[in-house]
Amino acid sequence: MHAILLIRCPDRPGIISAVSTFLFRHGANIVDLDQHSTEEEPGTYFMRLEFQPSRLDVPLPELGRLFAAEVAGPAQMEWRLTTTAERKRVAILVSRHDHALLEVLWNWRRGDLRADVWGVVSNHGDLHSAVEGFGVPFRHVPNAAAVRAAAEREMLGLLEGQVDLLVLARYMQILSPAFVERFPQKILNIHHSFLPAFAGADPYQQAWDRGVKIVGATAHYVTAELDAGPIIDQDVARVSHRDSVEDLRALGRDLERRVLLRAVRWHCDDRILVHGNKTIVFS
Amino acid sequence: MHAILLIRCPDRPGIISAVSTFLFRHGANIVDLDQHSTEEEPGTYFMRLEFQPSRLDVPLPELGRLFAAEVAGPAQMEWRLTTTAERKRVAILVSRHDHALLEVLWNWRRGDLRADVWGVVSNHGDLHSAVEGFGVPFRHVPNAAAVRAAAEREMLGLLEGQVDLLVLARYMQILSPAFVERFPQKILNIHHSFLPAFAGADPYQQAWDRGVKIVGATAHYVTAELDAGPIIDQDVARVSHRDSVEDLRALGRDLERRVLLRAVRWHCDDRILVHGNKTIVFS
Amino acid sequence: MHAILLIRCPDRPGIISAVSTFLFRHGANIVDLDQHSTEEEPGTYFMRLEFQPSRLDVPLPELGRLFAAEVAGPAQMEWRLTTTAERKRVAILVSRHDHALLEVLWNWRRGDLRADVWGVVSNHGDLHSAVEGFGVPFRHVPNAAAVRAAAEREMLGLLEGQVDLLVLARYMQILSPAFVERFPQKILNIHHSFLPAFAGADPYQQAWDRGVKIVGATAHYVTAELDAGPIIDQDVARVSHRDSVEDLRALGRDLERRVLLRAVRWHCDDRILVHGNKTIVFS
Amino acid sequence: MHAILLIRCPDRPGIISAVSTFLFRHGANIVDLDQHSTEEEPGTYFMRLEFQPSRLDVPLPELGRLFAAEVAGPAQMEWRLTTTAERKRVAILVSRHDHALLEVLWNWRRGDLRADVWGVVSNHGDLHSAVEGFGVPFRHVPNAAAVRAAAEREMLGLLEGQVDLLVLARYMQILSPAFVERFPQKILNIHHSFLPAFAGADPYQQAWDRGVKIVGATAHYVTAELDAGPIIDQDVARVSHRDSVEDLRALGRDLERRVLLRAVRWHCDDRILVHGNKTIVFS
Repeated sequence: MHAILLIRCPDRPGIISAVSTFLFRHGANIVDLDQHSTEEEPGTYFMRLEFQPSRLDVPLPELGRLFAAEVAGPAQMEWRLTTTAERKRVAILVSRHDHALLEVLWNWRRGDLRADVWGVVSNHGDLHSAVEGFGVPFRHVPNAAAVRAAAEREMLGLLEGQVDLLVLARYMQILSPAFVERFPQKILNIHHSFLPAFAGADPYQQAWDRGVKIVGATAHYVTAELDAGPIIDQDVARVSHRDSVEDLRALGRDLERRVLLRAVRWHCDDRILVHGNKTIVFS
Repeated sequence: MHAILLIRCPDRPGIISAVSTFLFRHGANIVDLDQHSTEEEPGTYFMRLEFQPSRLDVPLPELGRLFAAEVAGPAQMEWRLTTTAERKRVAILVSRHDHALLEVLWNWRRGDLRADVWGVVSNHGDLHSAVEGFGVPFRHVPNAAAVRAAAEREMLGLLEGQVDLLVLARYMQILSPAFVERFPQKILNIHHSFLPAFAGADPYQQAWDRGVKIVGATAHYVTAELDAGPIIDQDVARVSHRDSVEDLRALGRDLERRVLLRAVRWHCDDRILVHGNKTIVFS
Repeated sequence: MHAILLIRCPDRPGIISAVSTFLFRHGANIVDLDQHSTEEEPGTYFMRLEFQPSRLDVPLPELGRLFAAEVAGPAQMEWRLTTTAERKRVAILVSRHDHALLEVLWNWRRGDLRADVWGVVSNHGDLHSAVEGFGVPFRHVPNAAAVRAAAEREMLGLLEGQVDLLVLARYMQILSPAFVERFPQKILNIHHSFLPAFAGADPYQQAWDRGVKIVGATAHYVTAELDAGPIIDQDVARVSHRDSVEDLRALGRDLERRVLLRAVRWHCDDRILVHGNKTIVFS
Repeated sequence: MHAILLIRCPDRPGIISAVSTFLFRHGANIVDLDQHSTEEEPGTYFMRLEFQPSRLDVPLPELGRLFAAEVAGPAQMEWRLTTTAERKRVAILVSRHDHALLEVLWNWRRGDLRADVWGVVSNHGDLHSAVEGFGVPFRHVPNAAAVRAAAEREMLGLLEGQVDLLVLARYMQILSPAFVERFPQKILNIHHSFLPAFAGADPYQQAWDRGVKIVGATAHYVTAELDAGPIIDQDVARVSHRDSVEDLRALGRDLERRVLLRAVRWHCDDRILVHGNKTIVFS
């Protein structure tokens, strides 16, 4: 087990020294360190540290309290201390396309994700048995425009306080800003284009109409503004005049799976920090 | 030397048979054949053939006349017959960035492009000596907004009838629709983003502001509508939160060089056909 | 439904004309044509045609007989006529790693493969229930070195005449040359390196030891010589000094899945022709 | 101007704390930090730090002396302190292919490399005028097998003590182990394959003969054992059955340019550390 320390604070000299010396004094052995300073003035400093806590001179929660008092407070740090033993509780929202959902479930079942899957919520019943085959609860919550408010209330009742991450694995309904605000930086979506190109509906048709030679997929955090949240990862594939819209969709399924899985993994491993509308990914 | 036959006609059964049998009867040996039918109804059919003309029973121009009468006319074909010995005459328009220009000139000098470089036109004088070092004429035609009409008249006088292709190698001035219409599907531009994302000015800054994880470049034919012409090729590179706008520009230079060079090569090799706002690239 | 015609013959002028004219006369509408001539002297010619048979003037089997007599015979063609309605019968051999197996099964279940899965054979029992969850028969045939002969006899009894393709989806036992010869160009394997680098055992460890910056995977037909058969597809991913052997394996799983699936799809769609130790892939 | 501190030492807790606290106490502001610990036991620790020295309380050379005494000595560090104002002196060795040479020279002339080009040495005279067009000295040192000893003596006389890096930009002669040992980790070579595949002569022909679907290029440090030195960077491109050996060479030229340039840039920016036969690239 490793401990993970995430830090964000105003940039100034001496932060690395303060943090690393604090940890060293208490017996922590740093095994990974990544950091970033933004270029604007005044800059913001971000750090992710992994350390072995086995020889700590105090229990980990006590280390946190000391860190708050001695280091984080004086330097105005926002920080979070967690461990690789803590697993995110993840809910997956899906409509009818199963590829992104299955990719997450497979990798979870193999033990390749530091996450516990709480369950799957869908506005359709189609994937019920596929999901239960994984031993995962499936909830059908219809969510047409006319019943959106009720559907979101129902989902809020199910999910709030129960999960650390909502993964939209091709969930084809729009979530209201009010719903989104209840899960800040905790809703991951896959958009089937290399955003900002082809935001909105049916991006593969849009891409085909425009005659692009590359299609893509984008994983991003969901914000109140549709398709405009912080981008976490993108990937692309070449296409040609031979490819039909359906071919683009098939190629895209593979991109969507890959991009979404990386984003889920990084989120669960506490590797993503958000700064304004951008992500810092310590991958 | 090979002959190249390009065809476009309404799709119907029997085209390949008619064309290949005509060529076979006259002693042509087909060495390459590529074709494409669009999916809309009625479809359009495109074909590119390369054949060895060494054993033709008639001279090549006469073959063209016979083809027109016997095959192309009945099938309502638009067609073009050329040879690998004919070289496109190419003018390069450039402002101050030299990377895309030099990439084309290097490859031309190595003999890697089926083209003759007519010369370089720039709205700045900076690249004069670099261009003349290649033994290529350089013309300085200032082209600020206030003198656009005069500048375009001057360029038209220089270029019209003299060149088969205008390559905009980071030419930072907008060409008027009237100018563009004089060179239909004969102006190649490089846009420094994966269009349609970040059309318009300063795309690397736009990309950095949006926090994308992939940047790109696009080669396209210029049409009256800015940045909206048929896309020929695109390429991309990964970026991260560590990359500054300047880093994106440096990465982009490499993408721009590669994408523009491929587009110039395909155009000079008669591998690109335009259909509506899309390209068919028989690469 | 489309018909597919695959041809291989000594290269000479007139083949396209002969084939396309024969088809046109019998009412076939060619919708796709791809061809290749090898450069050696004398050259070999390969062609793949798809045509709509709905307006044929004779039944498809009769068309085949006529083609044999009128076209294929005189031109010394090897040829094969099939249709998109005929599905390959596929057996999958696997050991303990499930990722490549699941990728094939999942795409098959979605209807994305033109194949019927006959069943899965494994030298371990681990994946029994995972396979049966797809409604696919699972056979456990232990195959240690000491019992190889008996194991291969058993598999031969099960498979010969029953399947058109054997997919080795991380099957970690070596098949004897005698076994391999019973399925010429019908055994597909995935090797977890960019062959010919790191042939043999434990390629990820080998790659890590050598300190490469790119790892890969290769799909190839199995021949009597281990890891030396015709390569069908390859793919790669970047790695760095940070990646452990285990990281390479995780990255590799994704490469293996993608590469194997493409190879299976191309094989089932009759898009692969073998020439000597190389493949021609009309993708 | 930034200062750059490179460190290598036995891994143990407290290194980051010791180094960062030392720097902080003397007024250095760390702007970039990258580190790596090898997994073997006992591990080796590598660090690269960039800091702003403008507010140091002692001159930079004095900081180095203090660091040696207070930090590096006790922790058994090998270390190097340099600045972005110091530029590597680079010699380029080339035979007849100009693409890799021109890529380096062009980027150097743009100011995109932290290097001074000392000159170019070639075993042929062909590129004399191309090189002098850049204002760079050109030396012709014939180097056939029969005169190797004399040629290497002459080159040693020219280069030893004069340059910090030898770049083999498609230099087609083998250098003797004795010569190589005079420039440890200071000779960069580009090999035109994804090593370890196709080591030795004519790798594009080898790749074509094997029928691979991907070709590559590798930048590595030269050691006494041919093509076996530490790999710095690799890149690849897709090929198909349509590509001739000559096509592979053309594609390869682009790969070679890119890979070599990145390696030269990283070397000149002090981003590469060698550990055994591997590189750690803090890019």
